[in-house]
Amino acid sequence: MTRVAVDALGGDNAPGEVILGALDAAATGTDVVLYGPAGLDTQGLPLVETTEVIEMADKPAEAVRAKPDSSLVAAVRGVAQRDADAVVSAGNTGAMLAAGLLHLRRLPGVMRPAIAVPIPARQGPSVLLDAGANADARPDHLLQFAHMGAVFCEEILGVANPEVRLLSIGEEAEKGNQLTLEAHQLLRDDGTLNFQGNAESRDLLRGAADVVVTDGFTGNVALKLLEGTIKELLDALREEITATATGKIGGALIRPAARRLRTRLDPDTYGGAYLLGLRGLAVIAHGSSGRTAVANAIRLAARGAEHRVVERLAERLPERVGV
Amino acid sequence: MTRVAVDALGGDNAPGEVILGALDAAATGTDVVLYGPAGLDTQGLPLVETTEVIEMADKPAEAVRAKPDSSLVAAVRGVAQRDADAVVSAGNTGAMLAAGLLHLRRLPGVMRPAIAVPIPARQGPSVLLDAGANADARPDHLLQFAHMGAVFCEEILGVANPEVRLLSIGEEAEKGNQLTLEAHQLLRDDGTLNFQGNAESRDLLRGAADVVVTDGFTGNVALKLLEGTIKELLDALREEITATATGKIGGALIRPAARRLRTRLDPDTYGGAYLLGLRGLAVIAHGSSGRTAVANAIRLAARGAEHRVVERLAERLPERVGV
Repeated sequence: MTRVAVDALGGDNAPGEVILGALDAAATGTDVVLYGPAGLDTQGLPLVETTEVIEMADKPAEAVRAKPDSSLVAAVRGVAQRDADAVVSAGNTGAMLAAGLLHLRRLPGVMRPAIAVPIPARQGPSVLLDAGANADARPDHLLQFAHMGAVFCEEILGVANPEVRLLSIGEEAEKGNQLTLEAHQLLRDDGTLNFQGNAESRDLLRGAADVVVTDGFTGNVALKLLEGTIKELLDALREEITATATGKIGGALIRPAARRLRTRLDPDTYGGAYLLGLRGLAVIAHGSSGRTAVANAIRLAARGAEHRVVERLAERLPERVGV
Repeated sequence: MTRVAVDALGGDNAPGEVILGALDAAATGTDVVLYGPAGLDTQGLPLVETTEVIEMADKPAEAVRAKPDSSLVAAVRGVAQRDADAVVSAGNTGAMLAAGLLHLRRLPGVMRPAIAVPIPARQGPSVLLDAGANADARPDHLLQFAHMGAVFCEEILGVANPEVRLLSIGEEAEKGNQLTLEAHQLLRDDGTLNFQGNAESRDLLRGAADVVVTDGFTGNVALKLLEGTIKELLDALREEITATATGKIGGALIRPAARRLRTRLDPDTYGGAYLLGLRGLAVIAHGSSGRTAVANAIRLAARGAEHRVVERLAERLPERVGV
């Protein structure tokens, strides 16, 4: 049975919602082990006792070294020591990356791990990566991200021969910045990828490609802009609708439609993002994750372990990137 | 009277919608002169005859040199020769930039022109720049963009002491890529700007700051993502609503509310973006501009000329950037 290590103290709603989410995931067949302080009421779930906690404001690399017995670091170490098959935290993303690099280490041939996020596009999920592991990236990093995203797509989303595009500021090959111009050439010259050229950000939510590759700065800006715009727009619409009596009646009638849309677009539907490129599977959940998001993040982690995503990356990545 | 030179052949809907928009702007008191081919039915508006046309797919710098008598280049030259006070085109953005650099030239002290776009945020318009003039930028370019944005905000939006923020991937000063980390320091150390730190993209549509500074690649990705997400979301909502009979009735009742929101968020409300940093005022309208967008872009250009935006930049920028 797949066993997922969960940082009980990660995220804005920890430990309460984390424990509830872990219980939900356990109820649907995932073996969950929590990492947190002695005395935590885990409602029967197994607990590995830890003594420290990494805060959202902590400096990642320092915190990971200074707090080796924090719930986050201990949970990551749990995977390194094979006590668990994957780890989930809704805590400090940078700390998760630092702990992963320190305790799980990179897969052979991988230059940089990347955060791969499923975007709930209309035409089905797209995988956007890197969504923030590396603020600065080189063209050859982007080529590796493309391969990692393709493996994610094949193994987790079940897409054969996934279409890969490079996020840029025009569809033409000669549109972009220095980084994307060079990355475009590397992607085009790679014989194994189904590379279809540049994607524009305006198509991200409609469905730009199965895999959309970008550097971690642009990817993080894009992801947060997408989330913020969806939220702000639905809030603004509700405000306009409830401004008049007629609007209120109309609002009540369209509520089921609005709810269907919200459900599709809700980041909680996936619950988290894979941190790919390490010798162990890590899932980073949103800092604001509630019960449902935590449960889905744990299920996502379990699915990754069951589909042997790390092993598939290990088998195919070094060959693909010519190491 | 302020006179605006308009490229009659720029944009997807030229010349028809451009001429209609020009007529609307003329009807509300702007002196418009069209640049286009002989025989064009301008419905009485003055026409400067040109013989060439720059296409959307043309390579900007080459096209501007190869087609000196194109409607776009001739309209820009009209401003350089003081035949007009400002120029508007919905055509090739890169060509507009290249023609501006060639014929208007940069203001003293300006390293790079920038495209400044008003974002229709809930808390009032924000100015985002650079929205795409420079795909690669240096930290000192971003400092100049901040000053240009501040002048835009003061003169055109009437905001005193505008708040400036740097678009990054976290609010903390130490979050970002190499470019934003260095730009953050320059912005913080500048004594004349009301710099309030980093902004996150999730807040862009709510209202992150009066001026949001970024490089042209990130700014272009952000702008197109914003536009694409708004469109896709409203389309998806309409689709969900019209899927059921009850929803259809509700949809009819909320139509006025949805229309108010669409109007606020419609890029046509501003009609265009300023290309700042040149010795003449240029407004770039959306390629898909229709009549209303063109009319508003012409009015935006006229307002910039009346508020002497270029002169204000010339007076204040060299001093501010320490030239």
